[in-house]
Amino acid sequence: MRRDLVSGVYRDLQQQICSQLEQADGKSVFTDDNWASEIGYGHTMVFQHGDAIEKAAVNFSAVAGRVTESMKQVLKIEEGQDYFASGISSIIHPLNPFVPIIHMNVRYFELSSGKSWFGGGIDLTPHYVDQEEAAWFHNELKMICNKFDPGCYKKFKDWADTYFYLPHREETRGVGGIFFDHQPAADGSAFEKLFRFTRDLAEAYSRIYIHLLNKNRFRSFTEVEKRWQRLRRGRYVEFNLLYDRGTKFGLESGGRTESIFLSMPPMAAWTYDFKPAEATPEARTLSLLRKGIDWGSYEL
Amino acid sequence: MRRDLVSGVYRDLQQQICSQLEQADGKSVFTDDNWASEIGYGHTMVFQHGDAIEKAAVNFSAVAGRVTESMKQVLKIEEGQDYFASGISSIIHPLNPFVPIIHMNVRYFELSSGKSWFGGGIDLTPHYVDQEEAAWFHNELKMICNKFDPGCYKKFKDWADTYFYLPHREETRGVGGIFFDHQPAADGSAFEKLFRFTRDLAEAYSRIYIHLLNKNRFRSFTEVEKRWQRLRRGRYVEFNLLYDRGTKFGLESGGRTESIFLSMPPMAAWTYDFKPAEATPEARTLSLLRKGIDWGSYEL
Repeated sequence: MRRDLVSGVYRDLQQQICSQLEQADGKSVFTDDNWASEIGYGHTMVFQHGDAIEKAAVNFSAVAGRVTESMKQVLKIEEGQDYFASGISSIIHPLNPFVPIIHMNVRYFELSSGKSWFGGGIDLTPHYVDQEEAAWFHNELKMICNKFDPGCYKKFKDWADTYFYLPHREETRGVGGIFFDHQPAADGSAFEKLFRFTRDLAEAYSRIYIHLLNKNRFRSFTEVEKRWQRLRRGRYVEFNLLYDRGTKFGLESGGRTESIFLSMPPMAAWTYDFKPAEATPEARTLSLLRKGIDWGSYEL
Repeated sequence: MRRDLVSGVYRDLQQQICSQLEQADGKSVFTDDNWASEIGYGHTMVFQHGDAIEKAAVNFSAVAGRVTESMKQVLKIEEGQDYFASGISSIIHPLNPFVPIIHMNVRYFELSSGKSWFGGGIDLTPHYVDQEEAAWFHNELKMICNKFDPGCYKKFKDWADTYFYLPHREETRGVGGIFFDHQPAADGSAFEKLFRFTRDLAEAYSRIYIHLLNKNRFRSFTEVEKRWQRLRRGRYVEFNLLYDRGTKFGLESGGRTESIFLSMPPMAAWTYDFKPAEATPEARTLSLLRKGIDWGSYEL
């Protein structure tokens, strides 16, 4: 059965991501809060107080049931049928302000009507935008996209720009990445291709992050840079509580609050009307939090 | 004209609150970000880095215009007419975890249809609930309520319990206070009584807060208590971004983001699944964040 295949592979990938992150950090380990209920089961893997990673979460779940009113509204799917859903979602908040925040999600949905689809993406939120790193990151995603469907990178990149946006700040959340949803998987070969694509993304996730982590984790930083990191984390909180559909859906459907709020940074700050001085790295970062930037390809 | 009377008095009260808080703190001063646009004018008064007050905001505005789509939805008022609104809103985040967070708002609305009303309230969010202090606070509010309309305290107290509630946490934001909205003021004597009531509340606000501030500002605290304060501030952020109607209305109507987000704490934290040990002051606080508590009267 497809659902067992997907949830089995996703659960394995979750464990693989966790052990790779543990190994890279070298200090702390993940704890596994596993749960089971009448709708399914899940593993909430949480990592705290590492050497380079302040907080990381890797969530896996496989659930099934009757489509609810809030699913109908948030996910725009019809009532009166059964659903199955399985996915991994992950977020990493580093200690060093020169290491970015990253987020990844892959998910599979099935309805008793016969419809099924995949969704997901990876996006990067640097506290300080490094254009070369952003280009490298986008290039990594582009290569994975090209294996799946040449041309989809542009579409999924634009989708991320549109989704990870804070209208009240007129800022993107970070340098974006890719985002996709409702990619139909009823057809057998479409399912195979999409399932492979989401596995490739989940596999690339820890590799991409560990590269960025090792590159920057030992850079020295000042209290000014740490403060800026906390302000950027404040924006992350704003996005997640005001706009994120996963958070909204989770809270409205009575999900487990502590699992939903795992995406929250360990500590965030708000300073009234903070404006970085001109020509500072902070000001340059703000100028790069814009939709539609073509990050270009990365040259070794 | 009523609108000039109300906005003039509210603006005076704003300045009075600011100078009383400055005097009580003794270290920092308010800065006045004033603005004027085609819809009206306002003064965003911000206080930071005080001796006892980490961040305080006292906002005043007087605006008029055509009822917009988002006002129609959020405030449940009809379209196709003009409105006038003036109010004060304030919030104080103290440094010492044994001093509570406080919030106050008074507002007056007028529509070209002839309808007009007042709304507002004061509520208290202790990081550590002290039952005697909560009783004192509620008694102060009750005395002001009784001068306006005996019996309204119960009604407005229940309203606050219902409004300042985080369903996903099954917690009230703090020990509540009073909250009221849409109190009709078209009739001349109703207007007089309500206007007096909102003035009494705005005047009581700094007096009540300074009492609680002076009582606790010099208490020593540990890093554990400071960490708990940051977690409680995290809940404040959750309430304001997920449920607060003022924030929602402000963002949807294109209000000034930095003025709307003045209510945010200077620094907040999230720790996965933090549960205080039994019989600690933190656990006792959680047990008291419930609707419908009759705080009882304060005995000297």
